[in-house]
Parts: sequence; C-alpha cells; structure tokens
Amino acid sequence: MDGRLRDGEVVVGGDARQRYYDSSGYGRPLGVDEQRSSARETKSHGGQEVALSRVEAAYLLFKGDLDSVEGMGFREFLATEGDEITTRFLVYADLRDRGFYLSPAREDWIDAPRSNTDFVVYPRGKGPWDDAVLYRIRVVGERADVPAEELGDVVLAVVDEESEITYLETDSADLRGSSGADLPRGVSADLLDDRVLRDRPSALQLSLVEAAYLAAEGVLSLNADGAGSGEADDGGGGPEAVRERGREVEGRRFDRRLRVYRALRERGVVPKTGFKFGADFRTYADVESVSNLGHSECLVRVLPDDHTFSPRDLALDVRLAHGVRKRMIFALVDGSSLSWVSVGRLTP
Amino acid sequence: MDGRLRDGEVVVGGDARQRYYDSSGYGRPLGVDEQRSSARETKSHGGQEVALSRVEAAYLLFKGDLDSVEGMGFREFLATEGDEITTRFLVYADLRDRGFYLSPAREDWIDAPRSNTDFVVYPRGKGPWDDAVLYRIRVVGERADVPAEELGDVVLAVVDEESEITYLETDSADLRGSSGADLPRGVSADLLDDRVLRDRPSALQLSLVEAAYLAAEGVLSLNADGAGSGEADDGGGGPEAVRERGREVEGRRFDRRLRVYRALRERGVVPKTGFKFGADFRTYADVESVSNLGHSECLVRVLPDDHTFSPRDLALDVRLAHGVRKRMIFALVDGSSLSWVSVGRLTP
Repeated sequence: MDGRLRDGEVVVGGDARQRYYDSSGYGRPLGVDEQRSSARETKSHGGQEVALSRVEAAYLLFKGDLDSVEGMGFREFLATEGDEITTRFLVYADLRDRGFYLSPAREDWIDAPRSNTDFVVYPRGKGPWDDAVLYRIRVVGERADVPAEELGDVVLAVVDEESEITYLETDSADLRGSSGADLPRGVSADLLDDRVLRDRPSALQLSLVEAAYLAAEGVLSLNADGAGSGEADDGGGGPEAVRERGREVEGRRFDRRLRVYRALRERGVVPKTGFKFGADFRTYADVESVSNLGHSECLVRVLPDDHTFSPRDLALDVRLAHGVRKRMIFALVDGSSLSWVSVGRLTP
Repeated sequence: MDGRLRDGEVVVGGDARQRYYDSSGYGRPLGVDEQRSSARETKSHGGQEVALSRVEAAYLLFKGDLDSVEGMGFREFLATEGDEITTRFLVYADLRDRGFYLSPAREDWIDAPRSNTDFVVYPRGKGPWDDAVLYRIRVVGERADVPAEELGDVVLAVVDEESEITYLETDSADLRGSSGADLPRGVSADLLDDRVLRDRPSALQLSLVEAAYLAAEGVLSLNADGAGSGEADDGGGGPEAVRERGREVEGRRFDRRLRVYRALRERGVVPKTGFKFGADFRTYADVESVSNLGHSECLVRVLPDDHTFSPRDLALDVRLAHGVRKRMIFALVDGSSLSWVSVGRLTP
C-alpha cells in the first residue's frame, strides 16, 4: 500500500481504516469533509481513509506494513522528512515495540493537546478510541534545553547520542512530614565565615542556612564578630547578619535555599545537607529522634524557577537518587513563591 | 600548660617535646636557633620547646590537653584566629580522631611541601619522625573553587555546610584495555541533524562522535545531505562534514569529546555514551563481543583542562560512579594534549 503526503500527514485509503486504525491503533480516520476532498484529489474509491502522522508512517515503513510514501521507502522518507523527526521516530518505535498504542498529541488527534507534549500513550489494551491516557510524552534530544516550567505531568523521553532512550517521569510533588520542631531558646553562638559555631562541643557547628532559620525563629543569639562576648543578639548579630553572611558566600542562591529550608520545616520535614549526594538537601519526613534520623526519603535541589535543565544533568541527579533509594525533587523558587517537581526513572 | 603565639605558631615549653611531639606526634621540635630566640623572649627554662601549628593548638585546646594560648580557651582562640582555620581544624580533628598523626604541609615541617597540600598524613603507627606519607590532604569548603590542575596525588577533604567531611582521592589515571578494533570498510550512511543513520536496521544509528572517528578512519562513507544517494564520500560528506556538524550542535565540546574518544580507542578501550550516568562516556577495557559488552569499568567526563570544579559537582559524580561500581575519570583536554584524573571516595 502506498501513502500520499497531504498537509504534513500521510493519507492511506483502501482498507486502511480496518487495517491500521481499528486493528492496531495507527492514525486517525478522516472525517467526511476531509475524506471527500482527499477523494477528489486522488480519485480513491471505497473504504474510509486514514491519516497517519509522519512518525507513524515511518514506523509502518520500517516494519514493512506500509510499502511506500509517494514512492519512497523508509530510509529515503526519513531522510527527506528532515532531522527533527528522527528522535520522535525512535521514541515512537520504542513505545510501539513495548506494546503500547500512542498518538501524536495534536489538534484533530486528541482532545486538549498541550504544548509540552509530543505523544499521548494509552494504557495497555487501550487505544485512540478510548479516553484513558497513561503517559504524556515529551521527546527531547540529549542536547536540548528543558525549561523548568515545562516539567510536571509529563514524561521526558530523552534520546541520547547513541539513540538509547531514557524515560524521566516528572510530576508536581507535595512534601509533607510529621517531624515536629522542639526547639530550645536563646542558644548563644558565634558567626564564622561560612558556618556558625555553637557553644557545645558535641554539636559544634550549624550551617548558615540552619542558623539563619533558627535566628529568625528566635532560637539562636549570635555574636557576629566572633569575639565570644557571650552577650545576646545586639544589632550586628541578628537574623539579618546571618542572611547577609549567607549572601556573601552564596549570592542569591542563599535566599533560595533558605526559602526552601523554611518551607520544608513548615511542612514537618527535616532538611539536612545533601552535599554527599551533590544536592542541596536530603529530607526526613518522620524524625522521632535526632540521634537516629533513619533513612532520608528525598534529595532536594534548589533552583530558580526560570532554570533550564540539560537532560544530562537531569539524568545524573535522577540516577543518583534512584541508586540511593530516594526521590529526586526540584524546588523551584521565584522570590517567595515555590513549586516542587519530582523527577524519576520510568520503565514504560 | 599555656602556649605563646609566635610567627603564626604556638610555642610551648616545659616537657612539650616529650609530651606533645615524642609521644603523640604534635608540633615540631624547635631547633637550637629558634629555641634560643624564644627562650630570650620568654625566659623559659629547661626542656626542648615545640612549635604547634594553630590547628594543632586548637585541637589540643579542644581536647583539654593544652590549657590556653595567650590566656584564651578553645572557642575564643578559634574565633580570634579567623574564619579560614575552622575547616582545617575540622579535618585535622577528624583524622586525629581516626588515629592518624599528621602535620601541616609547610616549610620547616616537612620536606618538599606542595602548594596544593594542607596536611600530610602518616601511615598508622608512623609519625613526623618517619619518612612515609600516606595521604596528602587538601582542605576545601564545599563552596570553594577547585581548579582541575590542582587534582592528582592529593586527597580533597571537603567540609560541607554541616561540617561533615567527604574525602575524595584524586590520582592521575592511565586507561588501558585490550579491546581490538575489527572495523569494516566503506559502510554507507546518512548524516542527520545530530546523529548518523546507518544502512542497517539492526544497528540504526551512530553518535556523531563515533561517526566522526569512523569517518576519519575511512570506515564510514557519508551522504551529507541525507538524500540517500548511496555514493561514497564526495566532498560534502567527508570526516570534516561530521566534525562540522558536531561543532554546530555541541560547540568546542565536540572536539574535546572526539579527542578523548580517539584516545580511548587507541588505548584499546571501547567508549560508549555515558548519558544514563550523566557522563560523557562509559568505557569497556576488554570487549570480547559487541553483543555482550559486559560491565563498564569507568565513567569519563570530558572537560577543558582549565576547568574549575565545584566540590558539590565532584561529590555528585563520584557518588554516582561508586554506586554503579565504576571509577570516575576526568579527561582534561587542552587542544591536542590530554590528561586523566581519577577521583574516588576515600575512607581514611
């Protein structure tokens, strides 16, 4: 069977409706209007025509289930279609080979298409004639830029330079815990360069972000000059002094991290440094005892909300988090507003 | 016992030689010249004086093995000594607590001090009176910049914001393997946007860096326009065209990666993409069959040799590599010259 190019789709007639759509979920049946105009152009007879997306047509050519498109075979068709189709073809073929039906996420194909989605994947056993959607897929090459705002409720299918595909599931996240804050009052401490020295050898130092939080909560009194005067907060050593020091050593990143630290505490989650995992924080949702924190559930990386991800960095974070049995969470900060996105590996 | 500050060191007299140096490896015995000038100033009598570094003095104050320095206790001394001593104190204390003797890597203390080293650590049971050195330690805060050129034959002791220490062992590395290159000749292929389409469905695509290498080796003939003419290399489709395309999508990074890819191949090591690990390559030293590559031994990240590491990024790479049982290797490229540095976790 030969397909004809029309308006960026590949139209096939004959028994196409039964052969491609009804039995295998390819393409979309053309409506009466579309059908008629197509029939006029091509003088086709009988049956209901089906429009295949170019990616579907490429896959059918590749599988030998379609003979040609305008006389072209698979390789010629793909090369003619230009560069950008290749990555989408690879993802389409992978999902098809895994037994899923999927459709392009475009007007005329699905209801309410979204700009950040390339395909919708139906649950196993379902197809384009059903309403259920299992995954919304966004296809990106490993060198693409992925703006933070495009993450959430979408699966990134990242095609690497060897054409292997990594699926990264992104969702909005809601971190909650039951860890209470049983804080002492009026602890005295010295503010050093990039950490705070507390007056107990057993727990010698606080991070600046911890200290800034505790100072603002009235828990910590600081001697900003480090001279150990032992007196309570007297102007130079208040919460603002710690924030100022934080900004000196980290710039605006410090404010973002403090914003996230506070939000986690308010949600009953205990944040500790995530340094050993290359993250900003690791978090404990249900701390019963400080001496035994248990297993931390999440790694949190704090970023400005206009951050642009590289798929490689995403893959690194997600792979590491998976390896240590934690969820990877990105906390996206825009001034005082904050959103959480989880990203995890997915095997479709 | 009270110490006196002199020339940035803390001088202690009395039985200091026996008490601090001989029995516990602290400080350095002062020579006769130094001793005399000191004795004049302070009118001390008897015994051989010992100079402690400020970090050693802080540790002895902390442990209660030194009463005061110029009348100051631990907290006051540390605060007065300024910010930069704190991280070094933490690392010194950690290594002492692990049972090691160590000395500042400075003139008058050790032979041939190096600018990238803060402490030398002696093997267990050895001390400053022996020649053996187990580790050379460089202390950095987690926010410090670490130039690539300072890595190699040094252990980074990274002090994170909660004052936890991560030890990263850095060494020059030599990657060698026994994987031969049994390459076909004159395979025809199409050059697409950021990958190369080979004319065999079973192994559909090559990465650009693989294609650039194979084209330069005369293995691959490319149709640059992707029209599938099937003819051999005819000007537009030579090795240079692939490199050109690589530079378009990756900039100068492509040349660096190609340089490293070629070097690995020449060393009998098979590089594959390291994307899933957030790296440039994963490598196989002893490939017997392409269909069963086995376990890759190393992850390679390619960087310009003037790269500056953030300790957090280093920790992320090293942690990931460790989790998947691979060595983390940095390939540092300066034009055509190339050096290899391995970085791994160390528990002293």
